Amino acid sequence: MSMMITKNILPAWLRHYQGKNLSHDAMGGIIFTILVIPQSLAYALLAGLPPHFGLYVSIFPVIAYALLGSSMVQAVGPVAITAIMTYSVLSPIAAPSSSEYIMLSASLAILSGTILLLFGWLRFGFLSQLLSRPVISGFISGAAFLIIISQLKSLLGISYPSEDIGEMFSVLIQPLSYSHGMTITIGLTSFLVLILARYHLLSLLVRFGLGATRSAFIVRIIPLLIIFLATILVVYFDLDTSSDVAVIGNLTEGLPSFTFFLPSYDSVKTLAVPALLMALIGMVQGISIAESLAIKRQERIDPNAELVGLGASNIVAAFYGGMPVGGGISRSAVNVASGAQTPLSGIISAFIMILIVAGASHWLARLPLTVLAANIMVAAISMVDIKAFRHAWLYDRADALALLGTACGVIVLGLEGGIVLGVSLSLSTLLYRVSIPHIAVIGRIAGTEHFRNVVRHKVETLPGVLFLRIDESLFFGNLNAVETRISSEMAKVKDLTDIVLVMNAVNMVDTTAMEVFTEFNRDLSERGIRLHLAEIKGPIHDRLRHSPLLKALSGNVFFTANRAFEELAATKATRNK
Amino acid sequence: MSMMITKNILPAWLRHYQGKNLSHDAMGGIIFTILVIPQSLAYALLAGLPPHFGLYVSIFPVIAYALLGSSMVQAVGPVAITAIMTYSVLSPIAAPSSSEYIMLSASLAILSGTILLLFGWLRFGFLSQLLSRPVISGFISGAAFLIIISQLKSLLGISYPSEDIGEMFSVLIQPLSYSHGMTITIGLTSFLVLILARYHLLSLLVRFGLGATRSAFIVRIIPLLIIFLATILVVYFDLDTSSDVAVIGNLTEGLPSFTFFLPSYDSVKTLAVPALLMALIGMVQGISIAESLAIKRQERIDPNAELVGLGASNIVAAFYGGMPVGGGISRSAVNVASGAQTPLSGIISAFIMILIVAGASHWLARLPLTVLAANIMVAAISMVDIKAFRHAWLYDRADALALLGTACGVIVLGLEGGIVLGVSLSLSTLLYRVSIPHIAVIGRIAGTEHFRNVVRHKVETLPGVLFLRIDESLFFGNLNAVETRISSEMAKVKDLTDIVLVMNAVNMVDTTAMEVFTEFNRDLSERGIRLHLAEIKGPIHDRLRHSPLLKALSGNVFFTANRAFEELAATKATRNK
Repeated sequence: MSMMITKNILPAWLRHYQGKNLSHDAMGGIIFTILVIPQSLAYALLAGLPPHFGLYVSIFPVIAYALLGSSMVQAVGPVAITAIMTYSVLSPIAAPSSSEYIMLSASLAILSGTILLLFGWLRFGFLSQLLSRPVISGFISGAAFLIIISQLKSLLGISYPSEDIGEMFSVLIQPLSYSHGMTITIGLTSFLVLILARYHLLSLLVRFGLGATRSAFIVRIIPLLIIFLATILVVYFDLDTSSDVAVIGNLTEGLPSFTFFLPSYDSVKTLAVPALLMALIGMVQGISIAESLAIKRQERIDPNAELVGLGASNIVAAFYGGMPVGGGISRSAVNVASGAQTPLSGIISAFIMILIVAGASHWLARLPLTVLAANIMVAAISMVDIKAFRHAWLYDRADALALLGTACGVIVLGLEGGIVLGVSLSLSTLLYRVSIPHIAVIGRIAGTEHFRNVVRHKVETLPGVLFLRIDESLFFGNLNAVETRISSEMAKVKDLTDIVLVMNAVNMVDTTAMEVFTEFNRDLSERGIRLHLAEIKGPIHDRLRHSPLLKALSGNVFFTANRAFEELAATKATRNK
Repeated sequence: MSMMITKNILPAWLRHYQGKNLSHDAMGGIIFTILVIPQSLAYALLAGLPPHFGLYVSIFPVIAYALLGSSMVQAVGPVAITAIMTYSVLSPIAAPSSSEYIMLSASLAILSGTILLLFGWLRFGFLSQLLSRPVISGFISGAAFLIIISQLKSLLGISYPSEDIGEMFSVLIQPLSYSHGMTITIGLTSFLVLILARYHLLSLLVRFGLGATRSAFIVRIIPLLIIFLATILVVYFDLDTSSDVAVIGNLTEGLPSFTFFLPSYDSVKTLAVPALLMALIGMVQGISIAESLAIKRQERIDPNAELVGLGASNIVAAFYGGMPVGGGISRSAVNVASGAQTPLSGIISAFIMILIVAGASHWLARLPLTVLAANIMVAAISMVDIKAFRHAWLYDRADALALLGTACGVIVLGLEGGIVLGVSLSLSTLLYRVSIPHIAVIGRIAGTEHFRNVVRHKVETLPGVLFLRIDESLFFGNLNAVETRISSEMAKVKDLTDIVLVMNAVNMVDTTAMEVFTEFNRDLSERGIRLHLAEIKGPIHDRLRHSPLLKALSGNVFFTANRAFEELAATKATRNK
C-alpha cells in the first residue's frame, strides 16, 4: 500500500534516480540559475511587470514542472512569447506594473494554467498539432518584430504616445533629440556586444585555441557580465540620478508570500479568450521544445504530462510572482549547456533562486533598464527566422505563404488575431491539399506484378478496363474532385466494362465517401459497368465489410491489383473466343 | 465576331438545344408550376413573409438560374432551410411581414447572393466540401425540428409568448383550450391526409392496379387538392369570419414592380455574418443536390457555375419578391417527376407563374394558413433523417457523433451556431483521424514480391532491419504520433541497423514533415542507424529530390520495398561472412 502511494506521488525520474547524475544536476542547477538571471529579469520587463517578478516565477513553477512534466531537461520560466502576449493582452486595460496590472497578469496565469491542466487531463495533447511549423515560425517571427518595436523605447529611453504600430514608427523615425544620450550609449553598447558575442565570439574563441566547452561557457556568461558592468558603471558615476538613466529601482526586499486568490468574474470574462490562445501557444511551444530535446537525448515525452506540468507551473506562478510562464528554447538550451541531466537540476535551481531573491535582490536596484532591453532585442532578433521562409519557399510555396501570412497577421492584427489566422492557415493548407487528390491511371509493367502511372512508365493495359490508383484518403473534403476525375478518365476509355480502384494509398474511407461510392456503384451498374476494388488496407476492409458499399458492389474485391488484372484479362479472353 | 458574342451570352444547353426535348420541357414547366404552388406559399410563410412572396420569387430567380447555373434539372426557388434561416435571423430584429422585415429579408438575399456570386467567380466551389454528409444531415434534422416547433403554432392557431424554445414547449404542452377548434380540425386533417399520401398512397394506388407514373402524379397533386378543398370550405362556410380561421388575406393584385435598392450600412453590419452562413449552407445544399441529380442523369455540373447561378438568383430575388432562394430537394424532385429535361422548363415555368400572379392570386386570399403549416410540417418531418444516424453509427461512430452533435447544436444554439459547430466537427473528425495514422510493421510474403503487415500475415523479415509502412500522408498534424510509433517499434528490434520507410501510401509530405524527418535522419545516423525510403510516389519524389532530407539521407531511396529487402539482405550476408 505504501509502495502504491509512493508510486503515485513521486515522478518516475525521482524513483529511478541514478546517483551518477547527482553531481551533474547540482552543478548544472547552480550554473543555470546564475546564467538565466538576465533573461528572467528582461522577460518580466517585456511582460510589463516589475523585473524581479521574473525571478519569483523561477522558483515554484520550476518545482511544479519538475514534479509533473515529462521532459528531462526542458526549463520552464519567463519566456519571450508568453511575456509579449501578456503585455499585448493587458497593456490596453491597465497601466503596466500597476497593482491592477499585476492582479490581471496573475489571473491570466491561473486561467491559461487551468486550461493547460484540463487539456492535459482530457488528453488533448494532439491539439498541439493544430499549427504547422511554417505557421509557428511565422508567428514567432511576427511576435519578435513586435518585441523589437516595443523594446526600442527602453533601449533609446523614449516613450510611445500610444500602442499603435504606426505611431510607434513615427516616434522612432524622428530625430533622437528627446532620448537620453547616456541611455542610448549604454543600451547600444550592450546591444552591440551581445550581438557580437552571440554570433561571432564562439568561433573567435575557438580559433584562439580555447576548448569548445569553455568557449561556449564564456559566450553564455556574457549577458551576465554586461549587466554586472553596466550596474557598476551606474553605481560608480551615479548615472541614475545625474544622467537620468532608468534603472530597476528599489525592490521589496526578501521573498514574497504566497497570495491565494480567485480571478473575478469580470476578469475571467475579459481574459478567457486571450488565456485560451495563450494556452494554445504555450502548449505548442512547450511540447515541441520538449520533443526536440527528447529526440536528441533518445528519450520520450508524454505530451499530456507536459500539459499538466505547464498548467501546474502557471497556476503556481499565479500565486507567487503572478507572471505566466512557459517552456523556453533559450532557457532550455542554457539548462542543457549547464550539464543538467534530470529535473532534479531544476529543483536545485529553484532553491538557489530562493537564496538570491531573499538575500541579493537589492543588488539589482541600480541595474539600467536599457541593458535588459538590449538583451530582449538580441533574443528577439534571433527569433526572426528568415531561413525558415527560404526553405519553405523552395520546398512548398503554400507553406511559405502560410508562414508569411501568419507573420504579417501577427504584425497587423496583433498576437491573438495572428494565432487564429495561423490555425486557419494551417487547416486551410491541409484541406486544400487533400481536396485535390492525386489520381493516376495505372497499368502493369510488363513481366512484373508492379503497377505504375501510365504517364510516367511504359506499361500494359486491358481494353475496356480502367485501373485507377487513388492517392489520397477518401473523405467528405475531396469526393467532388475524385468523382470529377474518375468521370473524365471514364470518358477517355472506349467500350468501358470494368473499373478497378486500386486503394493501397487510401488510408480512410469516411461515411460520406462510403455513401458516395455506394451511389456511384449503383449508377455504374445501371450503365453496365462493373466496379472492382483492389488492395484495400486491412483496417478499411474491416470497416467496409458490412457496409452497403461492399454488399452492393457490382464487381469483386481483389487482394492485389495484379490478381484483378489477370482475372479480368481471362474474362475478356473467354468472352472474345 | 457575332458568333463569339452568341457563344458568350447564351448558355450551352440553349445553344445545343435538341428539338425533341421541347414538348417535355413545355409540359414539365406547366405541371411543375402548378405543383409547387403549395410549397412556394408555405416556405414564404415559414420565412416570416407574406405567402404570395413565395410566388414572386418563383419568377425571375428561376430564369437567372436557368441562364447561369449548370444543372439541367435543379429547381431553384423558396426552400425550407433558407426560409427557416431567414426567419431565425430576422424575427429577433423586426416583426414578420412588416415592411422593415421585408426590407431586411431582401437585404439578406442581396448579401448572400453577392457572396455566392463572388465564391463562384473566385472558384471557391471546393469550399462546399467543408461539411461532411453526416454533419449536413445533422444540420438538416436539427433545422427540421425547429421548423416543426415553429409551425405548430399556425397549425394549432396559437401564438408563442417568445422565440425561446423552452417557452414554446411550455405553451405546446398546455391544454389546447386557447386554440381554435376549427383551425385544429382543418390543420390536423390536412396534416394526416398529407402524411398518409406521402408515405402510403403510392404503394396503395399501385396495388389497386394504377400505373406507377400515374400513381406518382396523383401523390404529387394531393397537396394542391387539399389547398383547393380547404379554400372552398372556408369560402363556402365563411370560416375566416365566422370561426376566426386565419387565412392569407387580401393580396396586392397583379405583378409587383422591380424595386432596386442597396442595403443600408447598418443592415450590412447586422446581416453580414448570417448572410455568409446562409451562403455557405445554400452552397452546400445547391451543389450537392445538383451533383446527385447530375450523376443519376450521367451529366456533369460545374460547382462554380452553380454558385454563380445561385448567387444571381438571390440578387434578382432581392429586387423582385425579396425572399432568399435556394436549390431544393423536393422542388427538384417535382421538376424531374414533371418530365423536365433542360432549364428551358424553368423558363417556361417562370412565364406561367407570371400569369398566375398577375391574374389568379386573389383566389389565394381565403386559403387557410393552417393548411400551409401542415404542408411545411410534413416536409419538415421528411427532413428528419434517423436512418442516416443509424447508418453512420454502424459504419463510423465518430461520424455518427458529429451528426448528433450538429443536430443538438442547431436545436440548442440555433441555426447559425449550428453551422459553425458543424464545420468545426467536420474538420475535427478529419484532423483527429489523420492525427492517429495507421503504421504497420511489414515483411515479405515468402516467394513473392508482396509486403504485408507482420501481424495479419505470415511473412519473412530481416534481422536488424525494420520495414515500416506509413498509411497516411505526413504533415504537421500527425508527426507526433508517427514519431512515437516509430520509436516504439525501434525499441522492439534487436541490434537495429536499418529502417526502411515504405511510402506507397504517403500522398503528401509537407514542410513540417520534411524538416522533422531530416532531424530524425540526423539523430538516427548519430546512433549508427541508416534510414531508407522506398516506393516514394512520383509527385512527392519530385518535391523531395532537392530537399535537405534526401540530400542528407543516411540510407538509400529504393524503387520498391522488395529491392530494398534484397539489397539489405545481400549487405547483411556479406557482413556476416
